[in-house]
Order: sequence, then C-alpha cells, then structure tokens
Amino acid sequence: MPVLSERGVQMPASPIRKLVPFAEAAKKKGKKVYHLNIGQPDIRTPELSLAAIHAYSEKVIEYSHSAGNESYRKKLAKYYQNIGIQVDHSQIMITTGGSEAILFAMLATMNPGDEVIVPEPYYTNYHGFAVEAGVQVVPITSSIENGFALPKIEDFEKVITSRTKAIIICNPNNPTGYLYSKDELLELKELVLKHNLFIFADEVYREFVYDGNKHISVLQMEGLEQNAVLIDSVSKRYSMCGVRTGALITRNSDVYNTVLKFGQARLSPPSLGQVAGEAAIETPDSYFNEVYQEYINRRNFVIGALNKIDGVYAPMPKGAFYTIIKLPVKNAEHFCQWLLEDFDYQNETVMLAPASGFYATEGLGTDEARIAYVLNIEDLGNAVKCLEEALKVYPGRK
Amino acid sequence: MPVLSERGVQMPASPIRKLVPFAEAAKKKGKKVYHLNIGQPDIRTPELSLAAIHAYSEKVIEYSHSAGNESYRKKLAKYYQNIGIQVDHSQIMITTGGSEAILFAMLATMNPGDEVIVPEPYYTNYHGFAVEAGVQVVPITSSIENGFALPKIEDFEKVITSRTKAIIICNPNNPTGYLYSKDELLELKELVLKHNLFIFADEVYREFVYDGNKHISVLQMEGLEQNAVLIDSVSKRYSMCGVRTGALITRNSDVYNTVLKFGQARLSPPSLGQVAGEAAIETPDSYFNEVYQEYINRRNFVIGALNKIDGVYAPMPKGAFYTIIKLPVKNAEHFCQWLLEDFDYQNETVMLAPASGFYATEGLGTDEARIAYVLNIEDLGNAVKCLEEALKVYPGRK
Repeated sequence: MPVLSERGVQMPASPIRKLVPFAEAAKKKGKKVYHLNIGQPDIRTPELSLAAIHAYSEKVIEYSHSAGNESYRKKLAKYYQNIGIQVDHSQIMITTGGSEAILFAMLATMNPGDEVIVPEPYYTNYHGFAVEAGVQVVPITSSIENGFALPKIEDFEKVITSRTKAIIICNPNNPTGYLYSKDELLELKELVLKHNLFIFADEVYREFVYDGNKHISVLQMEGLEQNAVLIDSVSKRYSMCGVRTGALITRNSDVYNTVLKFGQARLSPPSLGQVAGEAAIETPDSYFNEVYQEYINRRNFVIGALNKIDGVYAPMPKGAFYTIIKLPVKNAEHFCQWLLEDFDYQNETVMLAPASGFYATEGLGTDEARIAYVLNIEDLGNAVKCLEEALKVYPGRK
Repeated sequence: MPVLSERGVQMPASPIRKLVPFAEAAKKKGKKVYHLNIGQPDIRTPELSLAAIHAYSEKVIEYSHSAGNESYRKKLAKYYQNIGIQVDHSQIMITTGGSEAILFAMLATMNPGDEVIVPEPYYTNYHGFAVEAGVQVVPITSSIENGFALPKIEDFEKVITSRTKAIIICNPNNPTGYLYSKDELLELKELVLKHNLFIFADEVYREFVYDGNKHISVLQMEGLEQNAVLIDSVSKRYSMCGVRTGALITRNSDVYNTVLKFGQARLSPPSLGQVAGEAAIETPDSYFNEVYQEYINRRNFVIGALNKIDGVYAPMPKGAFYTIIKLPVKNAEHFCQWLLEDFDYQNETVMLAPASGFYATEGLGTDEARIAYVLNIEDLGNAVKCLEEALKVYPGRK
C-alpha cells in the first residue's frame, strides 16, 4: 500500500475539529449547543450581493481572469482608496478566499525550510498553509496580561535567522481581538527593513475596530512598498464566508507577477463569488453602522458577563469579534470536551475553542479558550450562563 | 529588497500567456481573433444550475463543510453510481475546481523532491501544481504518430526510482484528445501495484467520448482501491468553469482523511458553486445529447478541414475537445505569435496554443499546436481558413 507524505501526516487537525464529534453527539441527545467556537457570523449578507446573485444574467458561467475580473478589481481599488490605502487595480489579485492569498504569498516568497515569524496565539490555519508550503512557523508569544499586545521587538530579534523570510500579523487579530497601534507597526517596519523581510498583514477584520481606535494598514506604512503584502477577504466584512473571495494586494510587482503565475495554474477565482463581492462594494454605510452597533453591543455584553464569572478573565478586545479568555481549569481542552459530553444546564451547553490550538509553543494556552461573539445577545447570555454553571461543577478546576 | 522564492521564479508561465498581449494588441487594431487556444466552451450552462443560483434563498452565504455540502456529495455519489463507479459520499471531497484536487492529492502523498510520472504532452498546470508542491514531474513521451496512445510500460519502468510516488493520467486527455483503452489501463494498474504507486486520474472530460468508445474510470479498476485517486470537476461537464467546483474521490481512507485536513485549512469550497453543481446533477439526458452532437459535429468538421490543409496533420481525437496538430513550420511558438502580430485574412486571424508548453522535454512539440474546438462550426470554419491562408504566406515554413 502506498504511503502518505510527511507533510500529510504532519498537517494539523485543529482542536476544534476534534470536538466536532462531541458536539454532534450532544445535539443527537437533544442538547442545545451554543457555538462560541467558530467565526461564522450570523449577520446577514448585504442585500446588494444577494440581489446580484439572483440577477446573474450570463448564460455560461465562465472562468474569470486569473487575477479576477477587472471591473471588480477597479471597484475594489476605489474601496481601498476611500479608506486611505492608495492602490491601483493592477496591484490587486483576487484570490479564493484570504486562505489562498496567504498560501500564494508564502509560495512566492519562501523556500521549503524557510521561516516565518508569527505572534502567538495565532490563526491556526497559518500553520496549515505553512505545512503545505514546507515552511516553518516560528512563534513569538504574546500574553493575555497586556491584552495580547505586540511582543517586544527583542523577542523577534532573538529568533531571526538566515532562514527568516517573513512576519505574519493579523490586524485586528483573530483569535485575540487585539489591534496593533501605530507605534507597534512602526517598530515592526523598522525590524522588517533591517532584516530585509516580507510582512504579510491579514487585515480581514479591518471594519471591526471599536472604541474610536483607528486601524492602520500595512499598505499605509511608507517605506514598506517592497515588503508589504496585504491579505484580505470579503468573508467577514460582508458576512459572506462561503463565496470564497479574497485578495492579495502588494506594490511589489515581482511578488505580484509571481503570485499571478500561481493564480494562472488554478485558472481563476470563483466567478459567482466575484459577482457577490463586486456588488458588495456599494454596501451603504447604514449596513456597517448596524453591524458595528451589533458587535459592540455583543462585545460589551459578553466581556462584561464573562468577567463576572468567578475565576474567568476576558481582556477587552479592540477589534474583530474574538477574545481569548482565561479559565480556572487545569486543561481547557478537557473542559471544552466535558462541556459537550458530560454537562448541561437546562439541557443546554456551550462550545468553545480551546486556545492551545492557537499556540505553536507546546504547553501554552492550556487554561485559555477562544470566544467568538457571533451570536445574538440573548444566545450569548444563555451561553455565558452555561459556562458559569459549568465552572461551578466541573471536576477539573484549578 | 527581499527576494522571491526559487519556486516562485521557477513557476512556469504558460506559452499561451505569453501570447495574450499579442492577441490583445491584435484586437485593439480591430482584428477579429478566433480563439482555438483555450478550453472555455461556448456551451450554455444547464438552466437548472442558473435557476438554482437565481433562486438562492439563504440570507447569509455561509461556509460549507470543508468536504462540501453533504446533500451535494450524496447526489454526486448517485451520479457516479449511475455511471458504474461505486462510491459513497464519504469518499467524495468537494474541491475548489479540479485544480485544488490535484494539488491536494500531491500534497497528501508526495514529499518535496518526490517524482510523479506524467505522459507528455500533458495539461501544463500539472507542472505548476508540482512546483507548488515541490515535486518533480518526470515525463514519458507519447507520440502524434499513434494518436498519443499510452507510451510503452518499459518507458515508465525506465524512469521509476525510489522517489517515484505517483502517475498522473488525464483520460480522456487534454491536450491530445486520446482515450485510454481497457488494456492500457490494465497495464498501468499492474505497474502501479508492482511499484506501490498512487495513480491520479483526471477524468473531467468523461462525458466527452466519441464513436461508441467507452470511458473506463480508474475507480472501476479492481485492486486499485488503495492507489487510485479520481480528480473531477463540473467545469467541462456542465460548461461552468467559473464556479470552481471539483472533487477528489478515493477509497483510500488515509488519503481521504489527509486531504480533508488540507481542506479544513482553507475552510470550505465555494458555496455558490456547490449550489450550481448540486442542481446540475439533475441535468436531463437531452442536454448531454445536444452537447455531444455539437462536439462530434465540430470535431468531425475541424479535423476534416485541418487535414485538408497542405502539410497539416490532425489525429482524430476519441474524447475531450482538443487535439494536437502537426504544422509545417519550424517553430510553432513563433508561428502562433506571427498569426496574431503580422497576419490577417480579411482582417481575421486565429490563436492557437503552441504545443511545446505541453511537453516537459525540451525541444519536443516545436512543430505542434493544440486546438480546442470550443467554437461553433461557422467560426471553426473561419478559423481554419485563416490557418490555411496563413500557412501559404508564413515565412518560417519547413
């Protein structure tokens, strides 16, 4: 029997996936499960996008240009210009979700064995794409104590080797909800220029920034023209994760042209997703205002409620719709499984994502979990109540 | 300035891409260009699929399951069962086009530096995916003289090393139009089992088989359960290349589970494309009969017309909608560019794909080109006329 590849064997299955069978079993038993574990928002996709799909008038659903439809890229360029990111449509490549943009960025700039530095906890799938590209993720630990701020630049300096080719940041951050400040980005810029690195900035949560804070894009940093690659997606911005429409944007034409070759091999990004994405550009401010208000209400509610639970600490996220919380348990992975398997409160329970899966360093995040506040406030209230009751009776408390 | 990766530099840009600027320039000058160079059919997408898109009733376009919607996979399993391929929906993973299925198959089974054998000429993008996966393509040359039949098994045996992990076949074949016979597939089976290899069979042109020939799937070959991976796509079957809906099907559960991990990293295949794909399953036979009749008319017409041109030889393809033709020119790449740049017949010209791009062996296919008969007969006639007139005046004739 032929054998699998090493990268196939090494490819991580996320801890959330391990919990899925337990969630399914709980539901089969009639338990209601509140999903705080996933980033699938319940927010409606803009009507404009749904209407564009309904009105799709082509008779043949053809390939698009490998870089995406020009009409879409031109509108997207305007969207960026409107938010202060000066790019041209020829610097934008439409990708199959942000996922493909990250993979292509790695493939175009890193050789197998090269290293990419990522502040941890980080979006688990960066690790998956790194395995696909044969690249090593080198983590730098950020900490719940300061709300997961950028680790000290010395920490980066310590791990930079001749194989280091890039840094990935997610800003605002999934899973921490942290928003990098201008000073932090300037520090990163200096580091990147000093060591001649690429910086990949995953900014898919750009629209989800709270408390009057301002999001600064890596493409707004002067001097990083040759280093910066912006990873974007319509998934969260317009709550249409399923269209698989992302973008890779860079002013480095060598990177752009190389990424385009990878894009040509897979022919084109999804055509229907581009129709939805192009229509979404005209989404009125009222949509974002409503969504913003909804998320800030959810955030304020859920963080407040969580911090009232004895032994739980939830830092206040500045952006995105996640937070990492500290739990008074010995092993959050076990706790999350126990919640599904052995616990209910009035026949309801809650599913969290154990945070250990977001750390690359073994042994970190074992008493932490990620919360996605993608449910309405009533459900969030019920979910937090489940958590509170569960911690009263959980046998594995610290 | 940070530098690109080696694989980024090595990533091939296909010879067709090199011609695109010349085609665009020709059009700008007002020349009409007949595109025989691409596999984008003009056939209408089934009404059922378009109607399903128009009737899409979800309010949030959500991620699907990473393996694709179960409802779609169950219907797809029935489609395969109806054509004599006994598979279950749990053996089907929906991918982002056939492209992703090929990449995932390579990633799951091959380490960087491993070798995959492919009969040449072959679909150029196999090479692109191999570069992405860090895998070496080892070509075995097939020949226009016998219509691009499977090369002798001795030829395969000669190049098999300890790094050889898989063989890719495309059946029916793009770019040659060849359909592998039962005997050829049995020979391949023996070889694969003898050397413990995987066999990836790209069967996306399954429905396009002519003259009463029968397509045999690699999943219909007993004894290959652990070796065979079927690559499929709805792109050509239902003329909806833009939906990016493919599939990877295997009875090898280790391969399936590993491929699924790669699928989880990219979250989900396109949701709207799955809606179109699921609806297409009910496409009536009348659609395929019409499409079949159209293609067989086109094939018979274009092959007949090409073979009447002095010095041109076009073998009769048994399947798909391509053929590789021999041209009486010294350098087909130059000829194809000249057609766009320097030639017109009544202000019209034709774009062909130089065949050298489909060969891995340097120096092969230099007097060959690929023809895709994806235009209506009137346009095909005009295109062939252009080619005939061009060859009368082309200065680089042999």
